[in-house]
Amino acid sequence: MPRLFMKRAKQKVGLTPGTPVYTGEKKIEKVRIRIIDYDATQLEEKEATTIEECFPFKDKPTVTWINIDGLHDIELIEKIGKHFDLHPLVLEDIVNTEQRPKLEDFGNYIFLVLKMLYYDNKKNELEAEQVSLIFGSNFVISSQERVGRIFEPLRERIRKGKGRIRKSAADYLAYALVDSVVDNYFVILEQYGEGIEDIERELVTNSTQETLQAIRAFKKEVIFLRKSIWPLREVVNSFERGESSLINESTVIYLRDAYDHTIQIIDTVESYRDMLSGMMDIYLSSISNKMNEVMKVLTIFASIFIPLTFVAGLYGMNFQFMPELEWRWGYFAVVGFMVLVGISLAAYFKKKKWL
Amino acid sequence: MPRLFMKRAKQKVGLTPGTPVYTGEKKIEKVRIRIIDYDATQLEEKEATTIEECFPFKDKPTVTWINIDGLHDIELIEKIGKHFDLHPLVLEDIVNTEQRPKLEDFGNYIFLVLKMLYYDNKKNELEAEQVSLIFGSNFVISSQERVGRIFEPLRERIRKGKGRIRKSAADYLAYALVDSVVDNYFVILEQYGEGIEDIERELVTNSTQETLQAIRAFKKEVIFLRKSIWPLREVVNSFERGESSLINESTVIYLRDAYDHTIQIIDTVESYRDMLSGMMDIYLSSISNKMNEVMKVLTIFASIFIPLTFVAGLYGMNFQFMPELEWRWGYFAVVGFMVLVGISLAAYFKKKKWL
Amino acid sequence: MPRLFMKRAKQKVGLTPGTPVYTGEKKIEKVRIRIIDYDATQLEEKEATTIEECFPFKDKPTVTWINIDGLHDIELIEKIGKHFDLHPLVLEDIVNTEQRPKLEDFGNYIFLVLKMLYYDNKKNELEAEQVSLIFGSNFVISSQERVGRIFEPLRERIRKGKGRIRKSAADYLAYALVDSVVDNYFVILEQYGEGIEDIERELVTNSTQETLQAIRAFKKEVIFLRKSIWPLREVVNSFERGESSLINESTVIYLRDAYDHTIQIIDTVESYRDMLSGMMDIYLSSISNKMNEVMKVLTIFASIFIPLTFVAGLYGMNFQFMPELEWRWGYFAVVGFMVLVGISLAAYFKKKKWL
Amino acid sequence: MPRLFMKRAKQKVGLTPGTPVYTGEKKIEKVRIRIIDYDATQLEEKEATTIEECFPFKDKPTVTWINIDGLHDIELIEKIGKHFDLHPLVLEDIVNTEQRPKLEDFGNYIFLVLKMLYYDNKKNELEAEQVSLIFGSNFVISSQERVGRIFEPLRERIRKGKGRIRKSAADYLAYALVDSVVDNYFVILEQYGEGIEDIERELVTNSTQETLQAIRAFKKEVIFLRKSIWPLREVVNSFERGESSLINESTVIYLRDAYDHTIQIIDTVESYRDMLSGMMDIYLSSISNKMNEVMKVLTIFASIFIPLTFVAGLYGMNFQFMPELEWRWGYFAVVGFMVLVGISLAAYFKKKKWL
Amino acid sequence: MPRLFMKRAKQKVGLTPGTPVYTGEKKIEKVRIRIIDYDATQLEEKEATTIEECFPFKDKPTVTWINIDGLHDIELIEKIGKHFDLHPLVLEDIVNTEQRPKLEDFGNYIFLVLKMLYYDNKKNELEAEQVSLIFGSNFVISSQERVGRIFEPLRERIRKGKGRIRKSAADYLAYALVDSVVDNYFVILEQYGEGIEDIERELVTNSTQETLQAIRAFKKEVIFLRKSIWPLREVVNSFERGESSLINESTVIYLRDAYDHTIQIIDTVESYRDMLSGMMDIYLSSISNKMNEVMKVLTIFASIFIPLTFVAGLYGMNFQFMPELEWRWGYFAVVGFMVLVGISLAAYFKKKKWL
Repeated sequence: MPRLFMKRAKQKVGLTPGTPVYTGEKKIEKVRIRIIDYDATQLEEKEATTIEECFPFKDKPTVTWINIDGLHDIELIEKIGKHFDLHPLVLEDIVNTEQRPKLEDFGNYIFLVLKMLYYDNKKNELEAEQVSLIFGSNFVISSQERVGRIFEPLRERIRKGKGRIRKSAADYLAYALVDSVVDNYFVILEQYGEGIEDIERELVTNSTQETLQAIRAFKKEVIFLRKSIWPLREVVNSFERGESSLINESTVIYLRDAYDHTIQIIDTVESYRDMLSGMMDIYLSSISNKMNEVMKVLTIFASIFIPLTFVAGLYGMNFQFMPELEWRWGYFAVVGFMVLVGISLAAYFKKKKWL
Repeated sequence: MPRLFMKRAKQKVGLTPGTPVYTGEKKIEKVRIRIIDYDATQLEEKEATTIEECFPFKDKPTVTWINIDGLHDIELIEKIGKHFDLHPLVLEDIVNTEQRPKLEDFGNYIFLVLKMLYYDNKKNELEAEQVSLIFGSNFVISSQERVGRIFEPLRERIRKGKGRIRKSAADYLAYALVDSVVDNYFVILEQYGEGIEDIERELVTNSTQETLQAIRAFKKEVIFLRKSIWPLREVVNSFERGESSLINESTVIYLRDAYDHTIQIIDTVESYRDMLSGMMDIYLSSISNKMNEVMKVLTIFASIFIPLTFVAGLYGMNFQFMPELEWRWGYFAVVGFMVLVGISLAAYFKKKKWL
Repeated sequence: MPRLFMKRAKQKVGLTPGTPVYTGEKKIEKVRIRIIDYDATQLEEKEATTIEECFPFKDKPTVTWINIDGLHDIELIEKIGKHFDLHPLVLEDIVNTEQRPKLEDFGNYIFLVLKMLYYDNKKNELEAEQVSLIFGSNFVISSQERVGRIFEPLRERIRKGKGRIRKSAADYLAYALVDSVVDNYFVILEQYGEGIEDIERELVTNSTQETLQAIRAFKKEVIFLRKSIWPLREVVNSFERGESSLINESTVIYLRDAYDHTIQIIDTVESYRDMLSGMMDIYLSSISNKMNEVMKVLTIFASIFIPLTFVAGLYGMNFQFMPELEWRWGYFAVVGFMVLVGISLAAYFKKKKWL
Repeated sequence: MPRLFMKRAKQKVGLTPGTPVYTGEKKIEKVRIRIIDYDATQLEEKEATTIEECFPFKDKPTVTWINIDGLHDIELIEKIGKHFDLHPLVLEDIVNTEQRPKLEDFGNYIFLVLKMLYYDNKKNELEAEQVSLIFGSNFVISSQERVGRIFEPLRERIRKGKGRIRKSAADYLAYALVDSVVDNYFVILEQYGEGIEDIERELVTNSTQETLQAIRAFKKEVIFLRKSIWPLREVVNSFERGESSLINESTVIYLRDAYDHTIQIIDTVESYRDMLSGMMDIYLSSISNKMNEVMKVLTIFASIFIPLTFVAGLYGMNFQFMPELEWRWGYFAVVGFMVLVGISLAAYFKKKKWL
Repeated sequence: MPRLFMKRAKQKVGLTPGTPVYTGEKKIEKVRIRIIDYDATQLEEKEATTIEECFPFKDKPTVTWINIDGLHDIELIEKIGKHFDLHPLVLEDIVNTEQRPKLEDFGNYIFLVLKMLYYDNKKNELEAEQVSLIFGSNFVISSQERVGRIFEPLRERIRKGKGRIRKSAADYLAYALVDSVVDNYFVILEQYGEGIEDIERELVTNSTQETLQAIRAFKKEVIFLRKSIWPLREVVNSFERGESSLINESTVIYLRDAYDHTIQIIDTVESYRDMLSGMMDIYLSSISNKMNEVMKVLTIFASIFIPLTFVAGLYGMNFQFMPELEWRWGYFAVVGFMVLVGISLAAYFKKKKWL
């Protein structure tokens, strides 16, 4: 089940604002630092063992992308903060993984927090991971909680020099990272869409209590999705409008495209929500229909046999003077009468479409 | 069932933004290119076999309408993009048929994405097809997934020189295309209106589980309709306000008219939504009413015959000393008593309006 | 049932925008044209047989009110359009009676579309009729589908020279016409209010399936009302703010008053909606309550007599050795026991408040 | 029941706008006019028999508060209108007691309409009374339908010279009157709060059909309350922002306070609405729970005794060869078996928690 | 249960605005006044017995934080008001604990009202306490109803000179206080989150009437939470945008952080609301499911034994000529037939999945 509730708030209360405290679980053993430094003509890629190896790149005119996987090494984060002159609150937000997606413009750099969603197949539930981006005129620092694969195609594009990326500044790289995260939502939404269609088919053919549980679980995950996606829209929007001098005119059109995608994602999530509400109604009406069916069976049985049992009881009375009892064909007449009553009642229920 | 869910998102993840990938199914064999070139006095119409045939028209002062049916020929789209100097993202959006309706102003041309709805009689469901429009000062490029008929009357109007169209610039032609798409929504809505009225009549006279299925299907299609129509409003609105120099003052008044129509369409869709919600409630109350009726039948039968059966059972007991059994008219008295009880109970149920 | 659905959309698809096509039913035989021409000191009133008779008034400084009842004579409308130099889209909107209320400022004249509601006593349902107003500096052209009575008191006020109207310009006359339409809504709302109160009383005392039908019908009509009234608000609002030079400062305060009235109408319609939603809930709970009552009757009968019948059955068994059967007072003891059980159970149900 | 529906609309249709017509019931016999004229040092208080007695105060620099109880004397209202140079629409609104709360700035005076709520203990329902305020630089005219008590404490404060009031201008007096009306809402809301808590307690312990009626009645009154209170907010807000030269800087801070109070009132009304919706759900679930209980009783009785009755019936058959019947302990064996079955079934229902 | 309803409104009606009246309960015996005066280099801390001891600090350039626990001593509040030149409405709001969170800028000082939430473990319910802050260029006055602990860590930070606080002005101290209050909400929300998850688990495994009561209670508390938290957002927002010269540029970034936190809190509360609505639906469907199960048991018992009892009754009839009765194996045949019927019916119910 996705974390709807903030579990680790307590440990932060009372601390000085701007104190970085890692609030996630330690997801990987060792922090991994990867650097790609490039311009249109040259490319340097390396994996750093200490954060200090990144610092020389800061003063080069080329675009430097520093990617950090693993956030539990607070000291490392603080070193970066010092070297790139970042605000203490930025450092706090990078490692506090309960952050809401947001964009903050600090003049000489822009700070972005995003939520990357992935489906944990082991736990069978949706997980969100925090991705932070800081970019200035010639660098982008990205960080997440564990080594992920969604930036891999982008890395490949840089290596191969495909597309605009090698010819563009750091703002385009930042856009490309945001775009990767946004594109990843489509994959998640597609999985959800299939899941919802499965439930729908189940609802029509054979809904059980498990169907209700599935609807409930989906509803909860959609609440979680909305919580991640609605602020994303604001983030991409303020990125797009960004009056910051860090964002070039030619990048804005790409950001507009990313904005369109987030709107599309929101539209889809809202459709899911509508669908799931409708399903709840269908489920409730299917329970009522089932009860109706049960009631009909009971009514048919009871209504046919209760009068007949009464007739049988009538002639089971022990009165001394019951003339019918002595008739030769009395028994057969009564049985015939019973058959008649039974058939009439069955016909009546047939007419009422209960049979 | 309309595609509420993005089915082909995955194949796009990780590609360079601006790479055109056709995400629809190949709906026609060969791409069809039709050109109409006109001004107030002259008209040229031809069907091109290669896209290069369109290019000479670009530099003529007359209005050129290039219509492309079929989007799977990426190379062709890229050639147009090159010749008309279109942004890569525009090309990507033309062939990505999962686009949300939108308008983008690129200065020397405007790019519009619309959704054309039509009812697929074979599959018995609503389908959406993407229509893209690009227009500059003297050209309009329209493209859709297959050969459609909704632009035919417009083509006829151009040929016959009826109305303002031959005397106007490319912006009016673009408006006329948008207007055709918008007008087509009315036809769809009318079909829906009739369908909803049919269900309503069914609900009142004789609702079954199929009625519920129909309501559910309509609800889902209305969710789909809303997803297509709400952004349309923004599109037409930003078209109308369009500060672009490509849009003449005299066209704005027509765009305002188209805007009014989209508002009217939205109003109607919202009414449908309200109607369908109300129907769900009626359906649920009709189930409850039916169960009530079943219960009443059961109660009447059981309540009348259970006491009578008890009385019969009473005189079926085998006690040696039961004075009534020996009475001469005992049997008839008991039967008379039973008839009395039966009538009283029936009267009681009559009074309660259960009979 | 009010027309929620656009029935005649199809015939318009593909026509040149600005082609007037009458979409209503022909409601009166002959178009009726009435002219009132006045200023503070003089008054001329006549009924014209041809539209040309109206044209001389155009150039007089007095205020001319041309009222047209019946819209099926397209030629007549086109003549007016020519003489008063109206935009083709205005003519189209006048005769297309499926229009949404709106206000459009064309510089030297303002065009208003309103919906007049009346209750059709024959069909027992709400009908909407389109009223169009065009006014310039010295003329007002009003048109509707049939001869109505709601402008009669206004006509009387002009004739008698009562109030500000004879001393004011055409804008005040236009306001007075709008005000008549708005005031008429109050009459309709009052009728609705009474109808809703009637249903409410019924709900409390004795709700039947007909009550549900009535709630449903009201709900549908309220949807219809909202569709007419919400845009009215915008219309009156943009009329009030109207920066147009056609609207005098002194009229604005009257328009503000009309705006307040539309807000009040919307408030009332929203209250009705809330009331009707609440009623649906009450109705559903009344069904449940009834089912509860039915169940209780069944349960009481069954629970009292089933155990007694069992006891009777017990002593109806034919075992050879059943000592009780031979007891002298066995029968009376058993009957006494049965009475006791019956009374105890009745007391139990009494305690549970089921009796 | 509060008047949700406009009852007297009809009589107004077709009248010249600005014609004052009293739409309320005549609530007091004679109109009562009370005047308080004061500044920081002096105070004059009198009860006028004719309205003309008020007029000399108009030209004095002191603040004059003219309070009129009773609105049925149209002539009197018109005299005031003439003397204080009020717009005809203001006069119409004063006596039309179906007005929506509003504020209108006429330059040299400001016109306010408010709704005062009080609980009519006789009819046991909420009533709204219209309070109109007109204030200029040195006068305030307040009017309501009957003699009320809510302005009495204010009158006392003026007499005793307590607080800022004697040192302030007419705008502060107007504020103080509005503040009295707003404060009075808190009293009404408190009564409602207690009523809602009472219902809630009832719901938990013992909900009956009367509880539903009470919820319904409260819901209706909350709809009525909202209709009065939401526009109040706008009124106080536009009063506070009032760019009018009639409002002094030092009064604005008090108006801000009054605005905070209206927001608080709205918050509370919205909370009530939420609470009442929740209660409806609880009520419906309590009906379902009761039906469940009834069903359980029926099921337990029927399920225990029906099998036993069958067994009894079995040995009541009259076959000649039924070996059990002749066994010495047959009867006791069967009875023992029945007790066993009965106990087992009871245990089964116990396990299912139905007993 | 949290106080949703204003209980003490009545006592205020009719008082001069700006009269401080304590509306809370007296929660502590004696008012406690604590002063901390500091700058980057020095620190003075003392507990004052009279309010006059605070006054000398006002003219010192150091930051002075005066904290008052207990609001029932109106005289003390008035003395502060006089000395620090506060507006009478501020004094009224400090002691009127029914205030809505708000921020008011009085030029030379800013006044803030906040709600601090804590969970009363004794009464087992959520309580809100009003915290007021007044801060000028070199002082902060905070007041609450009782001695609390949430400011203790902040006090400790000041003493130890940790973080920015000792180097910053009064605006940062005010921010730090607001931040403490906001952080405290996370703790409350976390407790709620756990409670909601507990209910959810209960719903799935074994929902009883108590579960409904718990949902209802949570819903009510969430209404209460929303009432406290939504205005908080506005407060922090207007604090952040604060054009006041009292707020330094460097503090704004911290306020933005606090604003992000309030948004996050609101998001979470809204998620809770969604969750709880969903739970109500689940609860209702669980009642229906239970009723269904009860019905099935009844139907199975009744439908199997009623026909069998009829057959038994048939052969219990006393007709003289019933050939079967005399057959040697009649009894066994009938019992065999009964077993067959019983098994068939059981199989039928098995097939319907009722068994």
